[in-house]
Amino acid sequence: MSHNSFGHLFRVTTWGESHGPALGCVVDGCPAGIPITAEDIQHWLDLRKPGTSKLVTQRKEPDAVKILSGVFEDDRTNGQVTTGTPISLMIENTDQRSKDYGDIRDKYRPGHADFAYDAKYGVRDYRGGGRSSARETAARVAAGGIARKVLGDSITIRGALVQIGDKKLDRNKWDWAQTTQNPLWCPDADTAAEWAEYLDGIRKSGSSVGAVIEVVASGVPAGWGAPIYSKLDSDLAMAMMTINAVKGVEIGAGFDAAALTGEENADQMRIGDNGPEFLSNNNGGVLGGISTGQDVVVRMALKPTSSILTTRQSIDKQGNEVDIRTTGRHDPCVAIRGVPVAEAMMACVLADHKLRHRGQMGERS
Amino acid sequence: MSHNSFGHLFRVTTWGESHGPALGCVVDGCPAGIPITAEDIQHWLDLRKPGTSKLVTQRKEPDAVKILSGVFEDDRTNGQVTTGTPISLMIENTDQRSKDYGDIRDKYRPGHADFAYDAKYGVRDYRGGGRSSARETAARVAAGGIARKVLGDSITIRGALVQIGDKKLDRNKWDWAQTTQNPLWCPDADTAAEWAEYLDGIRKSGSSVGAVIEVVASGVPAGWGAPIYSKLDSDLAMAMMTINAVKGVEIGAGFDAAALTGEENADQMRIGDNGPEFLSNNNGGVLGGISTGQDVVVRMALKPTSSILTTRQSIDKQGNEVDIRTTGRHDPCVAIRGVPVAEAMMACVLADHKLRHRGQMGERS
Amino acid sequence: MSHNSFGHLFRVTTWGESHGPALGCVVDGCPAGIPITAEDIQHWLDLRKPGTSKLVTQRKEPDAVKILSGVFEDDRTNGQVTTGTPISLMIENTDQRSKDYGDIRDKYRPGHADFAYDAKYGVRDYRGGGRSSARETAARVAAGGIARKVLGDSITIRGALVQIGDKKLDRNKWDWAQTTQNPLWCPDADTAAEWAEYLDGIRKSGSSVGAVIEVVASGVPAGWGAPIYSKLDSDLAMAMMTINAVKGVEIGAGFDAAALTGEENADQMRIGDNGPEFLSNNNGGVLGGISTGQDVVVRMALKPTSSILTTRQSIDKQGNEVDIRTTGRHDPCVAIRGVPVAEAMMACVLADHKLRHRGQMGERS
Amino acid sequence: MSHNSFGHLFRVTTWGESHGPALGCVVDGCPAGIPITAEDIQHWLDLRKPGTSKLVTQRKEPDAVKILSGVFEDDRTNGQVTTGTPISLMIENTDQRSKDYGDIRDKYRPGHADFAYDAKYGVRDYRGGGRSSARETAARVAAGGIARKVLGDSITIRGALVQIGDKKLDRNKWDWAQTTQNPLWCPDADTAAEWAEYLDGIRKSGSSVGAVIEVVASGVPAGWGAPIYSKLDSDLAMAMMTINAVKGVEIGAGFDAAALTGEENADQMRIGDNGPEFLSNNNGGVLGGISTGQDVVVRMALKPTSSILTTRQSIDKQGNEVDIRTTGRHDPCVAIRGVPVAEAMMACVLADHKLRHRGQMGERS
Repeated sequence: MSHNSFGHLFRVTTWGESHGPALGCVVDGCPAGIPITAEDIQHWLDLRKPGTSKLVTQRKEPDAVKILSGVFEDDRTNGQVTTGTPISLMIENTDQRSKDYGDIRDKYRPGHADFAYDAKYGVRDYRGGGRSSARETAARVAAGGIARKVLGDSITIRGALVQIGDKKLDRNKWDWAQTTQNPLWCPDADTAAEWAEYLDGIRKSGSSVGAVIEVVASGVPAGWGAPIYSKLDSDLAMAMMTINAVKGVEIGAGFDAAALTGEENADQMRIGDNGPEFLSNNNGGVLGGISTGQDVVVRMALKPTSSILTTRQSIDKQGNEVDIRTTGRHDPCVAIRGVPVAEAMMACVLADHKLRHRGQMGERS
Repeated sequence: MSHNSFGHLFRVTTWGESHGPALGCVVDGCPAGIPITAEDIQHWLDLRKPGTSKLVTQRKEPDAVKILSGVFEDDRTNGQVTTGTPISLMIENTDQRSKDYGDIRDKYRPGHADFAYDAKYGVRDYRGGGRSSARETAARVAAGGIARKVLGDSITIRGALVQIGDKKLDRNKWDWAQTTQNPLWCPDADTAAEWAEYLDGIRKSGSSVGAVIEVVASGVPAGWGAPIYSKLDSDLAMAMMTINAVKGVEIGAGFDAAALTGEENADQMRIGDNGPEFLSNNNGGVLGGISTGQDVVVRMALKPTSSILTTRQSIDKQGNEVDIRTTGRHDPCVAIRGVPVAEAMMACVLADHKLRHRGQMGERS
Repeated sequence: MSHNSFGHLFRVTTWGESHGPALGCVVDGCPAGIPITAEDIQHWLDLRKPGTSKLVTQRKEPDAVKILSGVFEDDRTNGQVTTGTPISLMIENTDQRSKDYGDIRDKYRPGHADFAYDAKYGVRDYRGGGRSSARETAARVAAGGIARKVLGDSITIRGALVQIGDKKLDRNKWDWAQTTQNPLWCPDADTAAEWAEYLDGIRKSGSSVGAVIEVVASGVPAGWGAPIYSKLDSDLAMAMMTINAVKGVEIGAGFDAAALTGEENADQMRIGDNGPEFLSNNNGGVLGGISTGQDVVVRMALKPTSSILTTRQSIDKQGNEVDIRTTGRHDPCVAIRGVPVAEAMMACVLADHKLRHRGQMGERS
Repeated sequence: MSHNSFGHLFRVTTWGESHGPALGCVVDGCPAGIPITAEDIQHWLDLRKPGTSKLVTQRKEPDAVKILSGVFEDDRTNGQVTTGTPISLMIENTDQRSKDYGDIRDKYRPGHADFAYDAKYGVRDYRGGGRSSARETAARVAAGGIARKVLGDSITIRGALVQIGDKKLDRNKWDWAQTTQNPLWCPDADTAAEWAEYLDGIRKSGSSVGAVIEVVASGVPAGWGAPIYSKLDSDLAMAMMTINAVKGVEIGAGFDAAALTGEENADQMRIGDNGPEFLSNNNGGVLGGISTGQDVVVRMALKPTSSILTTRQSIDKQGNEVDIRTTGRHDPCVAIRGVPVAEAMMACVLADHKLRHRGQMGERS
């Protein structure tokens, strides 16, 4: 619960600013004996990497991860495995261009954390948003790569964009295979094409737009989660709300549940071929804060990135009223690169609860 | 971060089951020297109390709180003040009627936590939902009474119902004074009357309906919140999502922010008579996880209570398919009594961040 | 890590003052399905109870424990088992005699926490030391009763007094069976008789004396402990140092290890009939913060209780110099009743590490 | 409370193995606006550095620290200050000589953590002890450099060796100025010369010896510490017991307090020129877990390093009995380089409690 850590038994501490020499994280509590290499982690970082299409920021960062501790040769397989000691991951910053940001040194960009950080700390690394930059999420994606190894192959975590601006996906067209075939993580090829055109217009106009991400974890066994105050869904809500630009989180039917009756909402049960089955999943795989064995379904709304070309009214550190226009590189829809981040947070929360459940499960669990 | 505790410097641990002898909480970390009496806490409990109108459960509980530790006579004022030691609060259960629940001993009620608790623990206090009952929230409301004292008079926390079923409040009619004048916490008298009639129909039909609660904290100074993983908004999301039946949480513009452009969303700033001013509050009083001085605005969606008179399909502990119909006392809209709970959680999170900020604020804050 | 809690997965929060209406604790994280009754816990409380011999305080407290939550009927055995939810334990204070303490309301008793509490909190429950009273340790002993159930029958935890004043036990005479046969927890009958006579003299003179307690846990498997900062020995050191009057803690050879050479100190190993064996136990069952399978051996020094009949120099809250003489009931050697407390702390720390190890153990543990 | 972190508001997480590419730490919770440079931290690392005299290990490491995050230019002073974000420190390993350790890959060195790590994790970085190496303490010393800045100039933390083998310092000869004038941290020049000769003999014989360190913090105001379970002394006991080779910790009179009477032990008070004064300091600056304003005095015993040239009996990973003789570089008395580590731990614990007290202090503190 310290500022820059999350998780309990699988605990991640991140560090680093947008334009410092490096950023990274320490993953503490990963069990020993799990095969892992830098390449395993790099795979996920590459999915979040900037500069991969014109629809995301043009900052060029290789985002190459180094493992500085916590792994060693395995005398059984000659591969590299975790040793149970803290895993330190580092990503060096290489394309920092601090000069881009000099003119906003004292000005508070609307919608950004500049004013709030100054109110709290009195001093602030203004280059690229410093610590409040979405660049910090690279460290989460790296940690998520380890978390997936802890979860193993029986659990699948996948994310998608389900709304961009006011354009919502037709869920009947959902095809998971498409999400990795287009730069928008859209589960439908036609919709992806429409969204790409729409977003390119937004980009050209120097504006930005919000979006909704959905992340689904399949294969989570029933019984994970620690009520009352470390419920699986409350931990997920916390985790997702820490992602830059996220303004809302919902589980299962989410806000739509408010308009349902008890008859419509409560998921009925039957005995299927493989044991208990639910006839619907309004609860999003969580009841009473504990997983039910159904898919765990989380959605989150991200606001439009606040770095836009249009001139806006603001103030500066000295208390003057100023006009401001952000000319640095930016994402027209920050949610796109948020998908792998949301997946990583899901993976970390689940890995933590896997270990917690193993530690605290009862004699009959 | 243990199961049944939340908060960091202002830390609340709750205990107790719906039909056990008592329930309560320990509030640890409350500063010394704060005047408080059992009556101060009882005031808030009375607002959450069951049996106050036909629109809430008819369980009759006085919910009388006792302070068992952590307070002492003040040699300056002869009043009673906190001593800095843990404050133990206890509420005895008096109207338990366990017989109501005997027939659901082995059956899993759809939408309830019964199945999930059994999957996790293998044994379960089935009476009234045991630990998963909303009755646990009485302890939170009591803790919230202490939290409000820590926050002091300069911070006001108020909650309201803004949607019930598919009926949304017209926000132009918002009058805070009305929320305590009707049993529905509705900020408009006419709307309250309509909703009451609607909900009474729901109640008579043995059904239930969901709702949306909004909680607003005014007077929070800029600078509270601990990024990246104890952001003010991520802590609020966690806190609200732990409340029974909550399926979604949003801050400020929330899910609507997804459909906004950067120009529409980012709150511009000017210098007003009392310093920095925002021209809008889409961000809900939080930027970068830190309070901005604006109202902190949180909304949450609650699903309809799952205890309904309609027969539903389910299974039992032995793996048989069964039909089930809940005949015990229940709330047709659990969100109504959720309003003081949501207020209490807001108070506890803010009290924690007040103390944390005081501890960690920089030399120039 | 909050003020009044310890442990991580098996987490204990205590509350209550010496002369308040009650004291107790909440045990959070106990696995479900463990049979436990109030009688099981009462057994350990009775061993710590005041008034059992003239060598301990004459305060008469039944110290009857009530279980308020976290247990329920077991549908398999009809007995009572834990449910995985927080276990709330309460002990009512019945022999409080507040009038005994009125004259020390403003005076700071030398060696007591009075001055320090006032410096920290500015207000203080002066009756019997309030929160700083050793009476708080009753809650620990109750929690320890649950911890022993978590550990199971294969682990034995026993404590003894090995020094009282400057009189040290001849370790060659050690007989565990004797420790429960005399009021001094002495492992030798003859020594116990000598000590009793010595201590009775101390008591009659209105003085007090310090002592050394040793606690040994047998049957702890190799592999428990979480280096670097939750080592088994560092957690034990923390736990024991929180016991009232403890001024030093050592593991294995402890302070004597400073005078040893590497040849003398390092415990050699051989393969015995049951696997790895150590030829000595200077390390006290812990290497690198992890249990080795040998007995875990902890000793702690307790200072003499500071409540004595001799007049001493002190000051009062108003800054006046005063003379003070403590006439309330007290223990001539507080370490005697400290033995079951030290055992309980050992049990709680081990229970926590048992669960933690289960949660985080590697693929090959 | 996770494995590799300590502290609450001032929280340190360390990572790294003896022979990995680097080691380091993340310091989270340091207030903003505190001037600090790498040189400030390097100063303390140089005091712990190996290879500085023949009495310590001949491993040659520059131990050059890099600050990777958490600091920025100060627009007021043009110096570098903390920003309130996590401070990541890294020290690269440069003199690793892994070949020295190949022959102990499968053998368990007596007195070392080899066996215990294998029992816990099943896989282990055997090079130089891996994570269990005292090399990890470099990260603590770096963190301590930051902690000292948080404490400010009014608090002085100094350490000394007060016993080596069975040779104890005559405390009447104590001169703090001497501790930095000889390689043994001895507070007396003549004693230092005797000890150096004695230790050189130990070194030449390939043996090792234990020692006792004393650390004293002056200038700590009354009121720090968080009873019952984060007492200043219990946090110090935990912190010191995590240092490699420490087997005992005591506060003030420590174990000697066991032989004192209440009259002898309890420190009397008078009013001096500057307010309350104690006539002695048997309690070591802590009463009831709270600082009193006197010097905080902690002593700890360190066992002799277990790496010695004499052949010893042990076993290997495969369960064979083996003979073992450690030929790598080592410290004949590991306690020498332990002094700056113990100082650093004192600094970190005090910095944490300074912030905690500021956060939770009462209205009248």
